[in-house]
Amino acid sequence: MQITLDTPLDMHLHLRDGEMARLVTPCSARTFAGAVIMPNLVPPVTDSAAMRDYAERILQAADGCDFRPYMTLFFKNQTRQELETALANPLFFGLKLYPAGATTNSEGGVKNLGETGTTLHLMEEMGIPLLIHGESHGFVMDREQDFLPVYRNLATRFPKLKISMEHITTAAALELLDAHENLHATVTLQHLLITLDDLAGGMLKPHLFCKPIAKRPADRDALLQAALSGHPKLMFGSDSAPHPIHKKECCGCAAGVFTAPFALAKLAETFATHQSLDNLQAFVSGNARRIYALTPPDKTVTLVDTPMTIPAAYRGYGQEIVPMDAGHTIGWSVA
Amino acid sequence: MQITLDTPLDMHLHLRDGEMARLVTPCSARTFAGAVIMPNLVPPVTDSAAMRDYAERILQAADGCDFRPYMTLFFKNQTRQELETALANPLFFGLKLYPAGATTNSEGGVKNLGETGTTLHLMEEMGIPLLIHGESHGFVMDREQDFLPVYRNLATRFPKLKISMEHITTAAALELLDAHENLHATVTLQHLLITLDDLAGGMLKPHLFCKPIAKRPADRDALLQAALSGHPKLMFGSDSAPHPIHKKECCGCAAGVFTAPFALAKLAETFATHQSLDNLQAFVSGNARRIYALTPPDKTVTLVDTPMTIPAAYRGYGQEIVPMDAGHTIGWSVA
Repeated sequence: MQITLDTPLDMHLHLRDGEMARLVTPCSARTFAGAVIMPNLVPPVTDSAAMRDYAERILQAADGCDFRPYMTLFFKNQTRQELETALANPLFFGLKLYPAGATTNSEGGVKNLGETGTTLHLMEEMGIPLLIHGESHGFVMDREQDFLPVYRNLATRFPKLKISMEHITTAAALELLDAHENLHATVTLQHLLITLDDLAGGMLKPHLFCKPIAKRPADRDALLQAALSGHPKLMFGSDSAPHPIHKKECCGCAAGVFTAPFALAKLAETFATHQSLDNLQAFVSGNARRIYALTPPDKTVTLVDTPMTIPAAYRGYGQEIVPMDAGHTIGWSVA
Repeated sequence: MQITLDTPLDMHLHLRDGEMARLVTPCSARTFAGAVIMPNLVPPVTDSAAMRDYAERILQAADGCDFRPYMTLFFKNQTRQELETALANPLFFGLKLYPAGATTNSEGGVKNLGETGTTLHLMEEMGIPLLIHGESHGFVMDREQDFLPVYRNLATRFPKLKISMEHITTAAALELLDAHENLHATVTLQHLLITLDDLAGGMLKPHLFCKPIAKRPADRDALLQAALSGHPKLMFGSDSAPHPIHKKECCGCAAGVFTAPFALAKLAETFATHQSLDNLQAFVSGNARRIYALTPPDKTVTLVDTPMTIPAAYRGYGQEIVPMDAGHTIGWSVA
């Protein structure tokens, strides 16, 4: 069995910077035609000059692969002029809003959502998508659900603003997705597959720890069914996030799961297992292209049901990353 | 401020065996008059000869401290004769029942609770307490609540059997405790203090990972209030469980939090903070002595509000254990 995917897109990706970016960028660029690049560097990417420079570093790191980085700015109540400058860069995609402190390197995020209205009106007017890390500061299992009223409020107040609920993890978020025309969502590979049980039900598995945290079986099942059915508003966004091994296997382990190199193969295996391969194209590219009118570089990737073993670690440039399911064999691979 | 506690008891303690037991036994024996010793060694302590030998090793490891190990047998549908032999040992305390696979070294536990009736009838008749690790095999946050109907059923079917719900973690378990005269419970230090947020709400903290997993704020608050109020059926049981550092800070982290050396100091601080010091004696000894008619060795421990810093690690006999709150300073210490 095999499938050829046109222009696969990863609609939520962390490439970090420096040596780490040199190691992980080709892991995505080899199989994806493009990816939406998160701006939560240290310091975050808040202006167009930093965005341009970061895009250049990514393109260099892509090592000759035809790969389009769809660049985002860290939401900071940008002005009209700042947004216009950003729009002048053809790689600019949208703004990513983090509630302050919600995840890795988000300390400079939005403290008061009430003060974002001016920028959101501008974005609506100028057709700039808003990507949101939608978590409250409440109890870890409730953070996404607690945040849903914020999405609802924004979707209602800014009906022409394209809003993406990033890396959704709950059945409740899926329900909301269907309730507002201008809401869209990404979902990661791991949230289609794991629950809190996989992270902490047996041994504790730091390499399955991410934000938002994996939820209940009913949530995972709902997300998987939506993806398998080709839900037209749901897009693949890996949220693949490399952390050096010493930040994962230590007294305090950073949040983030690394899946980029084998995400398409694992998705193909998952969709094939559920007799849903026909819907994979929509999930990994078609929906995003239609929703955002994207024209990524022509690129096809063929996946076959030939097993591959996920490496114990990805190493290079002085970095070492342990991926999800390190050492496990999956049933599909890139041809 | 200070408090002198008579015969402090730890009603749920893991000492392991060999070099590890030599390192950790004095950590408990220095401040506690006695402790209920868990039988989940490899292989588990299922018969009286193994129990006698294990008790001897513990007494040797106690290094001259006056310390009573209240020994338990791993529940294995023991016969009348096996129970009579156990009762002949004055250190024998009761049977510990593990659902198979529920926690560390419990693979040989009970697979079918329906087949335990004969032994439970004997225990009821012979006055032998039953201690239960009460978790289902369901979703990790629901396991204790899922198990409550089993407690209810046993408490009703065996009204004279003293049943202890070990290391309870939920408000629901507390409610059940009040509903049946023959139900009692232990609670750990960490479950009075932490929630899942402390384990996984920020960075992932392997040294706060235990079974049952820490629950919601409302659960933690209910447990703390019950302990502070001197709830007459709630006993301190640390569930202090040493794991070598390489089994905590690695790809798969074992469940267990090590608190024994400073548990009384931290409890004193906690009770003092809430103006409840008067109820600490009941929680750490009085309730257990009354419930089980225990006569531990005479021993008093005085705690004072002089700060101490929890070591980064406890080392010795080739072992290294990282405790809860390693490197943190707490407000009380042993005088």
